[in-house]
Parts: sequence; structure tokens; C-alpha cells
Amino acid sequence: MSDTIAPPLARRLAAECVGTAALVAVVVGSGIAAQQLSPADGGLRLLENSTATVLGLAVLILVFGPVSGAHFNPAVSLADWLAGRRTRTGLTGSQVAAYSAAQIAGAIVGAILANLMFNQSAGQISTHDRVDSGHLIGEIVATAGLILLIFALARTGRSALAPAAVAAWIGAAYWFTSSTSFANPAVTIGRMFTDTFAGIAPASAPGFIAAQLIGALLGLGAVALFHPAPPVAADDVVVPH
Amino acid sequence: MSDTIAPPLARRLAAECVGTAALVAVVVGSGIAAQQLSPADGGLRLLENSTATVLGLAVLILVFGPVSGAHFNPAVSLADWLAGRRTRTGLTGSQVAAYSAAQIAGAIVGAILANLMFNQSAGQISTHDRVDSGHLIGEIVATAGLILLIFALARTGRSALAPAAVAAWIGAAYWFTSSTSFANPAVTIGRMFTDTFAGIAPASAPGFIAAQLIGALLGLGAVALFHPAPPVAADDVVVPH
Amino acid sequence: MSDTIAPPLARRLAAECVGTAALVAVVVGSGIAAQQLSPADGGLRLLENSTATVLGLAVLILVFGPVSGAHFNPAVSLADWLAGRRTRTGLTGSQVAAYSAAQIAGAIVGAILANLMFNQSAGQISTHDRVDSGHLIGEIVATAGLILLIFALARTGRSALAPAAVAAWIGAAYWFTSSTSFANPAVTIGRMFTDTFAGIAPASAPGFIAAQLIGALLGLGAVALFHPAPPVAADDVVVPH
Amino acid sequence: MSDTIAPPLARRLAAECVGTAALVAVVVGSGIAAQQLSPADGGLRLLENSTATVLGLAVLILVFGPVSGAHFNPAVSLADWLAGRRTRTGLTGSQVAAYSAAQIAGAIVGAILANLMFNQSAGQISTHDRVDSGHLIGEIVATAGLILLIFALARTGRSALAPAAVAAWIGAAYWFTSSTSFANPAVTIGRMFTDTFAGIAPASAPGFIAAQLIGALLGLGAVALFHPAPPVAADDVVVPH
Repeated sequence: MSDTIAPPLARRLAAECVGTAALVAVVVGSGIAAQQLSPADGGLRLLENSTATVLGLAVLILVFGPVSGAHFNPAVSLADWLAGRRTRTGLTGSQVAAYSAAQIAGAIVGAILANLMFNQSAGQISTHDRVDSGHLIGEIVATAGLILLIFALARTGRSALAPAAVAAWIGAAYWFTSSTSFANPAVTIGRMFTDTFAGIAPASAPGFIAAQLIGALLGLGAVALFHPAPPVAADDVVVPH
Repeated sequence: MSDTIAPPLARRLAAECVGTAALVAVVVGSGIAAQQLSPADGGLRLLENSTATVLGLAVLILVFGPVSGAHFNPAVSLADWLAGRRTRTGLTGSQVAAYSAAQIAGAIVGAILANLMFNQSAGQISTHDRVDSGHLIGEIVATAGLILLIFALARTGRSALAPAAVAAWIGAAYWFTSSTSFANPAVTIGRMFTDTFAGIAPASAPGFIAAQLIGALLGLGAVALFHPAPPVAADDVVVPH
Repeated sequence: MSDTIAPPLARRLAAECVGTAALVAVVVGSGIAAQQLSPADGGLRLLENSTATVLGLAVLILVFGPVSGAHFNPAVSLADWLAGRRTRTGLTGSQVAAYSAAQIAGAIVGAILANLMFNQSAGQISTHDRVDSGHLIGEIVATAGLILLIFALARTGRSALAPAAVAAWIGAAYWFTSSTSFANPAVTIGRMFTDTFAGIAPASAPGFIAAQLIGALLGLGAVALFHPAPPVAADDVVVPH
Repeated sequence: MSDTIAPPLARRLAAECVGTAALVAVVVGSGIAAQQLSPADGGLRLLENSTATVLGLAVLILVFGPVSGAHFNPAVSLADWLAGRRTRTGLTGSQVAAYSAAQIAGAIVGAILANLMFNQSAGQISTHDRVDSGHLIGEIVATAGLILLIFALARTGRSALAPAAVAAWIGAAYWFTSSTSFANPAVTIGRMFTDTFAGIAPASAPGFIAAQLIGALLGLGAVALFHPAPPVAADDVVVPH
């Protein structure tokens, strides 16, 4: 990726916006389908929701990775900036802000789109309260693992595996965390806008987002510990620019 | 693919016909199995149906991709023609018509074959009414994503991933759309010919097909936006000719 | 594979025997687990059984493919012989007989091993009657597709994908056929030796095996139609020798 | 891997510790989630547990493989030493001890972490009694297959497939063994420290561990039989040093 000319920023922001919208539409839409079709068993609903998310997320990273890096996640964009500051690789601070805005806008649109696909009212606010201490530990662990995974692949020249691997990690984290692993501030905000299976009440969102940012920093620490020697411009594999 | 001599058109049409027949047999057959084996939970039935479709579709694209491009879908063949008109790559208009006819004939045969494998009467017409506004939005989104995926892979030299990626997209779309994502006019017509889990009533088909064609055009727009610079003859990766 | 010296025949026969034993242990063992753990829903039992089979079969082909070709299936060995007769590639007739004997012996051992792992009596004969016309059509279709897949991959230089692809096909065929797709005469014989979820009554076996052999011939016909031009020694990718 | 300088031992031990902790957190955490969400069906619980483990294990091997070899398992470290003694490749005896200690410590931490993520008391001891003869046979078979798989891939130059293949094997073995396939002494010890779905009573652990070690030796025998000719330094692919 580093030897190609990066797409213009506007196209990259469009990719982050559309990709995040599609991701949230997959998460919320499959959650609604599971809720409607499997009323009797909460585990089966989560299995349906997580399976659809794994499949959809892998595809979205394949499609948008070559355009914008397919972050779909302010925590990833922030980590890209932090990891690349010294070598002036990675996103700049202002690009992180623009990426995050595009991701959040897309996430909200995605939730509304899912509501509409299932003939629900477009505008909803979740009443699904989720915060407790176990949930916050789970968000930290899931986000730290996500950041470690992305940089481990980039720094060992295996970013072509990122679509399947990131999707697999999120699929596992749906289950091994009690929070079902949001691990993404933009998706957390988007999921406030649906009062269905995958929603999260606005009052729970700040705690989740704080835990995700802590997790991202911990993940960067793990990257420094386990994959400390980035070849020059290695971050380019994550974000072309 | 572009540096090999393309198979003769008759063989390619046979591949589209047999491949689409097998695809519909997988979709309809696994739907009947799910219906018979999991009477108590609609979500479990859909999980069984979607899992079988993901596995079968990936294999069929692997088998028939090198022969005909493994479209199995008039919306894909149409997009291939539209995207390649200026550079005279891709299918011609009359080839699109021939591909579509082979796909539709195969789809009908596949539905009948599935009926027979499950000891049902060969000739059936579905009574499963499916049209509402959410369903049509779902078909647009699923088909647009399918077209964007196929061309994104072709234009970035990753068409070898198409079997797994297209299957994953359809698997996700079974869940995140309320229509369970037909995303394919030929398969939609084929599924009229079984009055079982995966069937669709003839009255619902025209709306689905119209939405799929709108989605295909939207998908081509997204291709132009996100993957705008096709190398010469890039479409050859999708269809050898 | 064709440029390495083939392993000695004894080792290849051991690989076919052990590999087929492991395959049947996976199929029968996971069937018993499903039967014990999911008494309420037959579809869920089949989903558990098919998922375990997909994962296990892919691994066994990875492990034994470089040794013996990982046929585990007399229909595949027979097709290898038939397809390679003119060019004197592929197995010889007597090797097909030896392969088949090793596969059948392994299959029986595998069923007994599964019985023992689940604390059942070692020696059992299935009372699960399975033959009807739909089942036989299903066995023909599943076996034809299996043969077409294996040779399509070999003749297009993609046999490295066979572990995942063959497993995916069998996983799909569990569902889209009413017979749950045995598609393998040795496995059919082995599964006579367990009176559990995955068993088949001896009286049903001859019909299944006949249908499988018909399917193998049909599959070879499809190979001739869709992938007609084997490069010299292409079969070596399927069986090193 | 063999042509790169190995990471320092301390970093490799940290990788084994953190990776095994994460693995046990995935296994135990997803077990608790399954237990809470799917009270009605034991098979569904196991399907949720095994699916999450497959996805998470593959990711963890991807992340830590280039650092420490991603054994996460004293039986694998032991086999690596035994297989490499003559050629002085592989771990040394004292490194096996250090690896094992790191793995066991990590496994215990992982169980506690999972307890905390689900708001359970941190310190628990399992009361889940598991030993019977079928279980022990299952542990032997699962561990033998695991060792055979890892060395088969290494000795045929396909260790890049290990993340997906090892995860698939464990996923299958959850089902085809009656013990749900621990196949790992460190994980067995870690799982003593949670009184939830995935726990194992301390009294059952010694039998499981003995069976796993027997299985590892049997697996090495199968490696010698089926993949006998290791190129010099082939084990380096499993463990860089």
C-alpha cells in the first residue's frame, strides 16, 4: 500500500462513513432479525447476531481497506496517529478528528437504515442499560486485543489477513466479554439510535467509550512490548496516505 | 484470467446454468431441511439455511469462476456489461441476455431438484408473500453491496478472494436485511417454484427484482466513487472472454 | 507435489486408513455429542454435527493430503484412476483396491473409536433406516459435486484450497440433501457400525453406495465438460505418486 | 522465521503468558455467557462456546506466533523439545520448563479475568467432575491430532495455516470427544479456577493431563510415521529462536 498514491482525503472519509454505516446496519439489523426470529433463547439470538457481524465485517474491511484503511473506529484511528507520531507515518491529529466524525455520522445513519429495513420508526433512542464493572473490563480487554491484532499484523507484513482476523476477534469478543464487545466508540454512539437488541442506552455510552479508549492505550502498550520494531512506514499498511 | 483464452460461450452458458441450479438447490434444499428439522425456532431455521448457503455458494464460485465468471445472477452480468462498455471489456449486451436466460433456467431447475431431493412434488408455486417497504430497502442494500464487493476485489487484484467474500456477504445479508437478501433476479424467479421455507410468491417477485436492479445501479455508483481507476481489462478477472 | 518423490505405498495406505478413521470418529462422535446434548431439536443436532465435520475434515485433508492425497473415499480414488488412465497419471486399478480397503478398514475403526469415546459398547450395528428416492438423488448430487470440485481445483492449480473447499461442500451437502450427504462409500460402511445419530442401517448402505458411484461418474462427466484440458500430470496434485 | 533473530526469551515468555491468559479468558468467558444466555440446551451452549474458541484461538496464534511460536500449551512445548533434540533445533529442556510455567500462570490469570468480566467472584474452584474412560480416550485422541497437525504443517512448509487449522481442530474436538477436548495441560489447570460451564474439578485434572501427555507422545509417533523427513531447522517454523 505504501508505494501507491493514497486516495484523496474526501474519498477516504466517504469510505469511513459508508463503511461504518454498513457495519452498524449489519450489527443492528441482524440483532433485530434475531430478536424477531428467536424469541425463546438469548444465546441463540447472540449467535445469530455475532455470526452475521463476523461475515459482514470481514467483507467491509475487504472493500474499504484499500481506500481508507477500513478503520470504522475512532479508537483505531487514534492508535494509528499515536503509533505513527514520531516517524510521521499514520494519520495526523486533524485527520483523526475528520475520520472520527465520518465514522460517527456513518454509525448513526447505519442504525437508522437498519430500523427502516425492519419497518421500525427511523428515529429511536435505546433504553438498553448496559454499564457494570464487568462490562467495562470486557470493553478494555476487547479493544486492547483489537489494537494489538491490527498492529501485530501490520508489523509482521500480514495485513492481508486483517479482514478475516479482525472479524474473528470481534466474533469471539461478542462471547467472552459480558458486554458483547462494542470495542468501538463510533459504533457505540450509533447503537444508541435503535431501541432494539443491539442498542445501548445513552447513559451507558460514556463509560463504554472511556473503557474503549483505555483499552486502546493498553493495546498500544502491548504492541510496544510484543511487536516493538516497526519497519519504516509499516503503518502505511494500515492506512494508505 | 485475462491472459488465457476464454472458454467457448456454450460452455460458459452451461456453467451459469448448472451453477445457478446448484445454488438454488442449496438454498431451497437447506431451507426444506431446516423447516423439517427445526420446527420450533425461526431464527435457528434461518441460521441453518444461511450457513449452508455460505458454504455452498463459496464452493460453486470456486468451481465455475474460471469457466464463466460464476455470476449466477443477472444483476452481476448486467453490471459487468455496464462497467465495461466504454473499454469494450466485460460481457456484451447479447451475452448478458444469454447469461440471464441460462441463469433463470438453472434457477428453476434447481428449485425442482430440491423439491425432489426432499420427496416433495416437483412442480410447486410458492405462497410465501414477502413484499413490504423494509424488504425492498433490504434488497437494494444487499445487491448494491454485492456489486461493490465484486468490483472492489476485481479492481484491486484480489478476485481470488471472491468465493469466500461473496459467500460471506450473502451470509451476512440473510440476517441484516428483513428480506433475508435474495439479491439476485434469477434466484428470485427460481425460488417461486417451491412452496417451502425459501420460496417467494410470484406476486412478490417483481418488486424484489426491481429493487435488486436499483441496487445494482447504486452499487456501480459506489464502485465509481470508491474504486474509480480500473486498470485496462480489469473486468477480465470477473469474466474471462 | 508432482516434483517430489511420492511416499511409499505402505505409508500412503496408512494415511488413508488413519485419516478415514479420524474422519468417521469426527462424524460419529460429534453426532453422539449432539444427540446427548440437544435432545429437543433435530436441526440443532445436525448443525452441531455438520459444523464439527467441516472443521475436522478440513484439518484431516491438510494433514494427510501431502502423504496420500487425503482421499478417505473410494469414490474419489476410483475417479482418480478413471480420469488418469489414458495419461497413466493417477492411481492404478490395484492401488484403487488397496486404497479402498484401507479406507473401509479405517472407517470401521473410526466408528468403534467414537463409540468408545462416548462410553458406548464398541460393537454396534445401526438400526437407522435411510433409503428413499429423495435420499438417493441427494447422494448422487452430493458425490457428483464433490468429484467436480476436487478435479476443478486440481485442473486450475488451486488444490491448496481443497481442504477448506471440500469441507465446505460436505458441510453444505449435510443440509441441502435429504440424506445429509454421506457421499463416500467407506464412510457409509463405517457408519453402519454405530447405532447412534450418524449411523446407517446395513440394509440402506447398498443403495447409498450405488448412488455415490453413479454420482462419481456424473461428476467426471461434469469435469470433462467444464474443465476439459488437464495439463500433463495435473492429477499429481490430487495424488502424489 | 528461521532466518530472523529470535525475540529475547523474556518477551517470548510474556507472549506465552498473555496469550494463554487470553485463550482461557475466551474459553471460560464464552462458557459463562453461554451458560447465562442458553439455559435450555446444552448443545447450544457448547456450540456457542466452541465457536467463540475457534475464532479467538485463531487470532491469538496470529498475534503471538511470530513472537513465541504461540504454543499456549506445555504439551506442544514438550513435543517441540522432543522432536528437536537430535538436531538441536526446538526448545531446550529448561526453556520447556519456563514456557510451561508461563503458560500455567497465564491460564490461571485468564480464568480469573473471565470470572471478573462476568461479575463473578475472582477466586473459584470448579466442582465440575469430568473423568471417565471415554473422556481420557478423547483427550488422547485430541492431543495426538493436535501435535500431528502442528508438525505436519511445519514439515510441509505450511505453518502460515496453523492459526486457522489449529483452531479448526480444537473446534472439531470440542464435539467429537466426550471430554470437549481440553488437549492442553495449562488450560486444564487454568480451568480449575472457575466454577462455571468450562470448569474442571481439581480431582479430574491429573487424569486429563496424563492423557494429554500420552496423546502428545502418540502424536509424535504419528509425525514420525507420516511426516518423517524434517528439513534442517524445520522446527524453527513452530518456534523462532
